Amino acid sequence: MNGAESLVHTLLGSGVDVCFTNPGTSEMHFVAALDRIPGMRCVLGLQENIVTGAADGYWRMAGKPAATLLHCGPGLANGLAGLHDARRARSGIVNIVGDQAVYHRPYDAPLTADTEGWARGVSAFVRTATRAEDVGADAAVAVQAARTSPGQVATLILPSDSSWNEGGVVGQALPVPAVPQADPHAVKQVARILREQKNVLLLLGGLALTEGAQRQAHRIAAATGARLLAEGSNGRIQRGQGRLQLDRVPYVVEQALAVLGQVQHLVLVNARDPVGFFGYPGKPSRLYPPDAAVHVLTRNEQDAEAALAALADELGAPAVAIPSAGPRPEAPRGALSPEGLAQAVAALMPEGAVIVDESVTYGRGFFPQTYAAPAHDWLQNCGGAIGYGPPVATGAAIGAGGRRVIALQADGSAMYTPQALWTQAREKLPVTTVLLSNRKYQILIGEYRNVGANPGRTAMDMLDLGNPDIGWVKLANSMGVEAAQASTLEALGDLMAQSFARPGPFLIELLI
Amino acid sequence: MNGAESLVHTLLGSGVDVCFTNPGTSEMHFVAALDRIPGMRCVLGLQENIVTGAADGYWRMAGKPAATLLHCGPGLANGLAGLHDARRARSGIVNIVGDQAVYHRPYDAPLTADTEGWARGVSAFVRTATRAEDVGADAAVAVQAARTSPGQVATLILPSDSSWNEGGVVGQALPVPAVPQADPHAVKQVARILREQKNVLLLLGGLALTEGAQRQAHRIAAATGARLLAEGSNGRIQRGQGRLQLDRVPYVVEQALAVLGQVQHLVLVNARDPVGFFGYPGKPSRLYPPDAAVHVLTRNEQDAEAALAALADELGAPAVAIPSAGPRPEAPRGALSPEGLAQAVAALMPEGAVIVDESVTYGRGFFPQTYAAPAHDWLQNCGGAIGYGPPVATGAAIGAGGRRVIALQADGSAMYTPQALWTQAREKLPVTTVLLSNRKYQILIGEYRNVGANPGRTAMDMLDLGNPDIGWVKLANSMGVEAAQASTLEALGDLMAQSFARPGPFLIELLI
Repeated sequence: MNGAESLVHTLLGSGVDVCFTNPGTSEMHFVAALDRIPGMRCVLGLQENIVTGAADGYWRMAGKPAATLLHCGPGLANGLAGLHDARRARSGIVNIVGDQAVYHRPYDAPLTADTEGWARGVSAFVRTATRAEDVGADAAVAVQAARTSPGQVATLILPSDSSWNEGGVVGQALPVPAVPQADPHAVKQVARILREQKNVLLLLGGLALTEGAQRQAHRIAAATGARLLAEGSNGRIQRGQGRLQLDRVPYVVEQALAVLGQVQHLVLVNARDPVGFFGYPGKPSRLYPPDAAVHVLTRNEQDAEAALAALADELGAPAVAIPSAGPRPEAPRGALSPEGLAQAVAALMPEGAVIVDESVTYGRGFFPQTYAAPAHDWLQNCGGAIGYGPPVATGAAIGAGGRRVIALQADGSAMYTPQALWTQAREKLPVTTVLLSNRKYQILIGEYRNVGANPGRTAMDMLDLGNPDIGWVKLANSMGVEAAQASTLEALGDLMAQSFARPGPFLIELLI
Repeated sequence: MNGAESLVHTLLGSGVDVCFTNPGTSEMHFVAALDRIPGMRCVLGLQENIVTGAADGYWRMAGKPAATLLHCGPGLANGLAGLHDARRARSGIVNIVGDQAVYHRPYDAPLTADTEGWARGVSAFVRTATRAEDVGADAAVAVQAARTSPGQVATLILPSDSSWNEGGVVGQALPVPAVPQADPHAVKQVARILREQKNVLLLLGGLALTEGAQRQAHRIAAATGARLLAEGSNGRIQRGQGRLQLDRVPYVVEQALAVLGQVQHLVLVNARDPVGFFGYPGKPSRLYPPDAAVHVLTRNEQDAEAALAALADELGAPAVAIPSAGPRPEAPRGALSPEGLAQAVAALMPEGAVIVDESVTYGRGFFPQTYAAPAHDWLQNCGGAIGYGPPVATGAAIGAGGRRVIALQADGSAMYTPQALWTQAREKLPVTTVLLSNRKYQILIGEYRNVGANPGRTAMDMLDLGNPDIGWVKLANSMGVEAAQASTLEALGDLMAQSFARPGPFLIELLI
C-alpha cells in the first residue's frame, strides 16, 4: 500500500467520504488511489476557492468535514479566502494540499512556495506528512482536529513522494473529542445577573443558533425579559416556523449602536463581543457601551444548548412555546424591492430550504420578512472575504442531501467565484441562484460617501461594474446552468416556482 | 494632506502611473485620493489575481512597475498566485494592500488576517505604513525596491487610518539602483572554459534574452561553438526576425535530459540551473549530468548584455550577423494541429506583437514554427501557478502601449481567471485570445498515465472538463468580449486577421 492509498482508507474509515478537488501533477498518485478505492465522492472545482468554499458549505449542512485536494502552495493560496471564511464560520475541513516531493523541495522548482506558512493563518492544525509510513496516522489526527468543536480547518500537506512511496499504514479513526460543557460557575453568575439586573442581552452565535438552543434561550427570555440577538454574521441559523424571530447585530455602525446602545449586561453565548467590520474615523470599534459588563456563558466551542438549559433551570424558567410568526406571506407582486424579494422567498421556498446569503447591501433587511417562512436554514458570510456565496451554496447542496438551496447573491461578489456554477451543473445540484444585478459595488459607493465626497469619474471607474454590463444569463449558460432574467416580482416568483419544481441548478438574474 | 494623498503623489513622483485595483472599504480614502489627484490610470479587476497578474504583464512590457490595490489579507490571498508567478518571472510590482485601521486591528474584526505573513512568501520587501506621516517615505522605498534589478515584488500594507489621518508627507523619489555588473573574474573564468573545453552550453534567462544580449551571445557561440539555450520558462524573450532561433529547456524530463545530457560545462547567464518542474519516481531532479560543471557568468540581477559583450571581447569574437530564419511562413490550411496554429500565428501576427503563452501541453512545440515571424515578444508562465495568461495578457496590453497581444490560452488554465476578459473589454485592449478548447486537463491525463494506469471513472471526473462543456463564446460575450469558434486553420486565420485589423479584444474558441 502506498501513502496515497493509506490516506484514502484512513479518510473513509474516519467518516470523510466527500472530497472537493482541484488536483495537479503532484497529486496524481492520490487521484489514482481515489480511482482504485471505492467510497469517496470526488467533486471537481475549477478554481480553488470553489473547492474550499464548497467544503465550508458542506460542513455547515452535513455537520461533518469534507476533504479538499489542492495543488501546492499557489493552489492553497487560491483557496485561502474560502478557508478564511470557513475559519470565521467555525467550519471543520480536512484541507489536503499536495506538494513537491520532499527530496525535490531543495531545488526550488517553480511551484515551490511556503505552503506551511500560508496555511497557518487559516488553520488550527498544520502538518506535513513527510513519510509514506506516517500519512495514515497524520490524516487521522487531521480529521480529529477538523471535527473538534466547534469545527476547525486542519491542513495536511502531502509531498508527492509520501503519496507514491510504499509503506503506507491505514490510520485508525480517532475519537471525536466531546463538546466541552460550560463552567457551572458561569451559569450561576449569568443567572444572578439575569435575576438582579435590567438591560441584559444574550448574544447568540454558532452552536447557540440551533433550534434546540433557541428553545432554551426563549425560556430564559420569557422568564426574565432579557433580549436575544444573533451575531452579525452567522454560519448557520435555523429559522422560520417553529424557530425564534431572532434579529442580528446590524452591519452599519450607527444602526448597531442604536440596537446595542442601552445594553448594560452583554452575555455571550458561543458569540464574540460585537465589533465593527472596519474602523471608521470618529466611530467606536466596539458596538456596545464602554461601561457595559460582558459575561461569557459559553465559549465558541462549548455546548450552548446544555448551558442554556442549565441556565433556564437555574432560573426556574418554565418551558414555553415559541410564538408563531403569523401566517406565511403571499407571493408579492409589482416592482422589485428588497422587502419584496424577501417576501417572495418566504412565500415560495420549499420546506427545509437552505438560504445562502451573500446579498450584501440589498439583503440587510431580509430577516423580518422571512420569519413566517417554512422552517429553513440561513447561512451567512462570517469572514467578509467576498465571493463566498457560490461555492458555499455548492457544498451546502451536497451536505444537505437534496434540499433546495437558494443563493441570494450580489453580482460584484459573484464575480470572484463564478466557476462554482459549473460544478453545480456537473453535479446537477438543486441550487437556485437569485443574482442581484445592480452593476456596481453598492457597498463601496456607500462607504465612499462616508468619506465625505461623491465619487468622481476615476473613483466610479473602480466602483461601477457596468461598461460592459455582465450578462449573467449568458455567463450561467456558458457553464451549463439554465438562466433567465426577471425585473418584476411576478416574473421572479414564476421563475423561482419553476426552478423549485425541477431538479438541478438555475440562475435568475434579477435586474435591481 | 492625508496619508492617502501623500501616497498618490509619491507614486506619481516616483514614476508609477498605472494602478490595477480591486478596492474595498478600507481603501476608500485611497480611492478618493486617486479621484482628486489627476495622473494615475486606474484599471479595475474583478478578482485579485487579475490585478496582480496584470501588474506582472505590465512590468514585462513597460519595464517599470505598476501599483496594485488589494483589500485586506483575504484580498491579498486571492492575488498571491499572480504574485508568485510575478516573483518567478522577476517582475517588479508595487503591491499595495489596504488593511484594518491600526487601532481596530486588536478587535480581530472578520476580515483581519495575517496580511504581512501571507505577503512575505512572494515579496522581497514588506512594510506596514503604520502612521500617515510615514506613508510617503514608505511608498518611495517600496517603489525603489520594486525597481531594483531584476524587478521585485514590494508589498506596502496600508492601514486605513494611515490613509485618512492628516500629516501625510510626499516621499521623495529614490534613485533606481544601477544594474550590477558581472564579476570580471567570472568573465575570465568562463572565457577560459570556452577556449579549453567542449560541450559548453550557455543557458540564458531574464535579462540575457533581450535582443542586445542575444547579439552578444551569438558572437560567442559563433566563435566557440558553444550551444545557446533559454530557460524552460521565461518572463520575456525577444524573438522573430533579427533575433536568435533560441530553443528552451523542454518541460518533459526525458526530453530535457536528451537536450542537456551531453553537457559538460553549463554556464548560467541570468539563469538558474535547470531542475524538473516536479520530482518523479526514479527520475532525477536536476536536468543535467551530475558530473557537469556549473559556472555562473551572471546572477539574475546582473547586466547580462554587458557581461556577454565583455566575454565576447575577451574571446576576441568578431561581430557577426544573426542568421535569418528564412521567409515568413504562409497562412496554413486544413485540420488543426499545434504546428498549424503556431504557423498561423507566425504568418498573420502584426509586427511587434506580444505573445502571452499559456498553451500548456498544446504549445510545447510552438517555438520552431515562429522563428521566422516578424519581430515579437514571447511571455511565459515562470511560476507554474496556472491562470496566469488572461491577466498577464491584460496588463501586457497596457504596458506595451497599443501593440497587439495574442494570448495562446489553454481552457483549463483560463477558468482560473476568466474575469480578465471583462477588464479587456472595459479598457478596449488589443488582446486576441486563442482559447484552446480541449475540454480536459490534458497535462494531468498525461501525468496520470505516468503513474502507470489509465484513469477510471473517478479519476476522469477530476481530469475532464466536459459534462458540461464550457461555452467560451458565451462566456466571453457575457463579459463584453466578442468571440467566435474555429475548427479549421482557415477559420482560425480568418478570425485572427479580422481581430488584428480592428481595435479591442476578441476571443477565438479553437475546438482542438
